[in-house]
Amino acid sequence: MIANLTVNLLAVVEKVESVQMSADDVEKTSSEAVKGLKGIIAADSSICLVNGTIGKLLYRGYNIDDLAEHATFEEVSYLLLNGELPNASQLAEYQESLKQYRSVPGELIDALKILPTSAPPMAMLRTLISLAGVYDPDAESESSDKRLQISIKLISQIPTIVAAIHRVRKGLEPVDPDPNLCHAGNFMYMINGEKPSEDATRAMDLILTLHAEHGLNASTFTSRVIIATLPDIYSAVTGAIGALKGKLHGGANTEVLKTLFEIGSVENIGPYVKKVREAKGKFMGFGHAVYQVEDPRAKHLKELSRRLGNETGEPKWYEMSIEMEKLVYAEIKRNCNVDFYSASLQHYMGIPGDLFTCIFAASRIAGWCAHILEQLDGNKIIRPKANYIGYEERAYVSVTKR
Amino acid sequence: MIANLTVNLLAVVEKVESVQMSADDVEKTSSEAVKGLKGIIAADSSICLVNGTIGKLLYRGYNIDDLAEHATFEEVSYLLLNGELPNASQLAEYQESLKQYRSVPGELIDALKILPTSAPPMAMLRTLISLAGVYDPDAESESSDKRLQISIKLISQIPTIVAAIHRVRKGLEPVDPDPNLCHAGNFMYMINGEKPSEDATRAMDLILTLHAEHGLNASTFTSRVIIATLPDIYSAVTGAIGALKGKLHGGANTEVLKTLFEIGSVENIGPYVKKVREAKGKFMGFGHAVYQVEDPRAKHLKELSRRLGNETGEPKWYEMSIEMEKLVYAEIKRNCNVDFYSASLQHYMGIPGDLFTCIFAASRIAGWCAHILEQLDGNKIIRPKANYIGYEERAYVSVTKR
Repeated sequence: MIANLTVNLLAVVEKVESVQMSADDVEKTSSEAVKGLKGIIAADSSICLVNGTIGKLLYRGYNIDDLAEHATFEEVSYLLLNGELPNASQLAEYQESLKQYRSVPGELIDALKILPTSAPPMAMLRTLISLAGVYDPDAESESSDKRLQISIKLISQIPTIVAAIHRVRKGLEPVDPDPNLCHAGNFMYMINGEKPSEDATRAMDLILTLHAEHGLNASTFTSRVIIATLPDIYSAVTGAIGALKGKLHGGANTEVLKTLFEIGSVENIGPYVKKVREAKGKFMGFGHAVYQVEDPRAKHLKELSRRLGNETGEPKWYEMSIEMEKLVYAEIKRNCNVDFYSASLQHYMGIPGDLFTCIFAASRIAGWCAHILEQLDGNKIIRPKANYIGYEERAYVSVTKR
Repeated sequence: MIANLTVNLLAVVEKVESVQMSADDVEKTSSEAVKGLKGIIAADSSICLVNGTIGKLLYRGYNIDDLAEHATFEEVSYLLLNGELPNASQLAEYQESLKQYRSVPGELIDALKILPTSAPPMAMLRTLISLAGVYDPDAESESSDKRLQISIKLISQIPTIVAAIHRVRKGLEPVDPDPNLCHAGNFMYMINGEKPSEDATRAMDLILTLHAEHGLNASTFTSRVIIATLPDIYSAVTGAIGALKGKLHGGANTEVLKTLFEIGSVENIGPYVKKVREAKGKFMGFGHAVYQVEDPRAKHLKELSRRLGNETGEPKWYEMSIEMEKLVYAEIKRNCNVDFYSASLQHYMGIPGDLFTCIFAASRIAGWCAHILEQLDGNKIIRPKANYIGYEERAYVSVTKR
């Protein structure tokens, strides 16, 4: 019996030690910086579920596949802002509000026209959204109704501003919005100056739907950190545009298009893939920081890229993408992500590569505003700590003695 | 012996249970949101030590008391950017750079002149800094030298822009910078249009020094979250200005001045303090989220407030502040913070209350840039997670059936 007891005791002691060790580890970790806040849960949120393990994305409980197949961006942005899909009369009212807001103050277009056209479109958008806040007499309002209204206004007006940026950079006059067109169709119309085909409208609607929301990504997190000091929605959205502008965030599909242009033909894909593999380089538009399996958004853009490739008589970019998807998967077993087919698709839609991030902003504004409104509900200022690794206190020495 | 062993065993088992319980707690905590990221260590930093328990603040190892007493803002901003105080020739070169950059592109002043003067000065500043980025041909540069240069440019130009905002709002022409004046003196000159007294220059220099840096506060954290996606420094600073604009962050001293104006006289302080206490209200400018003891920055502004009160022949606001400090401490045992005397002091300097947050930005830009450069060195994108509390997956229902 004593022998048994001793064995048990040793087992227990071992367990104590191992548990204590892990407790120490926890303590040690907690006094070190969590770089990039990786794994830190910064907020409760009911807006979006991203399950990277099984490749599932829900907006307010609705599967992105269902929304991509059945819903318009008007329904999706309403859903994100309000938490529920609109019924028929709510949708009609919301669509009407979006249309009412489409025209932006003339001062914004005047300001745009004098900006140097060499500046990145995202720097122009950042400036014009900040300026829109200066011109909005409701910007400082703390009423929930006004805040929702400003959110709808931004969802409506960012396309107008983005289209105007595009045209002014090309030396063209901005195109006035057309109230007979839906949100996506009107956006395409303001970009290209002609009524878009049904497929092109559908493509824009899909791009807007698929990029509208994705949890606490860097730009959305930025918008929450800013709004939590209680400035105004324009301050938060201006900051979010700045974060989206970065090449580690909003710029991936621009890189995909650049790559396709560089490669130039279906025949060159094979040698290109081989070369990148040998140089241990990266394939833009493949893999994802969150999704370990297929990005659930990617597949929806593929078929439209095919159709618009045929419509425009330039199937090459679609065919190259198909070949690249196949060869990259064979090499590294990685699926393409949402950025991959959005590159050829937007090219077919007449959108230049360096405008892609602005299109992204015109979509993600719905997610930003949903998060801003959620943060304001039960707000707390967001202020982490730093782990000080600098000098101990040292004596000041006057400049003549340095 | 068996009895002893059993007692020991029980003690060990108890220990296992308690350790396990705390391990479970840790696990549970880690799946819940850390609201406001309170206590989370988001970065290693060698810029600033804030010890709230003993009321100590170090910039790069130098005590804020020494810097306040001996150093100029030129030295302090150089220290924050570069990690070391400048020697005589480094300081001369840096001062020369700051002077070179003082004039801003004429387009910025043109843009400012057409903004509605009713807009908050911080919304104007946010827009003009974003615009400055559009006009800066180096904005997108990834060279360390250029990034340091942009930081120095921003430290130099924010005062010019803030002074111009102030004057244009008052219907006055902006004043060109004077290269014969130091950074603080020139700032005062551009605000008021006349050469400042020695005390007024000293006061501005001290205000700039004391507000230049304070760890991962919300605006500085914003600047790091934005720059971590690798956009450009203007995007990060524009976002930081938006965060500083919020009333939970940069707006406290404005509120102190409003309160002094409302109270109106030394005699009214007693009744006011009593009234606030009875209503369980807050005293603006007292206590601090980080400092449990005296805010080490507060005392430095007091003497200058006294002197400028005498110089301007309006000692009332200083005398009211003295009385308020005394009575509030007697009531709630709280010391005043850096915002408290900065209110009467800036009023004496001819700065209106609603410009205080812009003055704060002209100072904190040094800390923002130091953190931006630190983040860029070994950068990692900042992307926390959200704790999803929304709907389980639900079936899409077409609009006609909702």
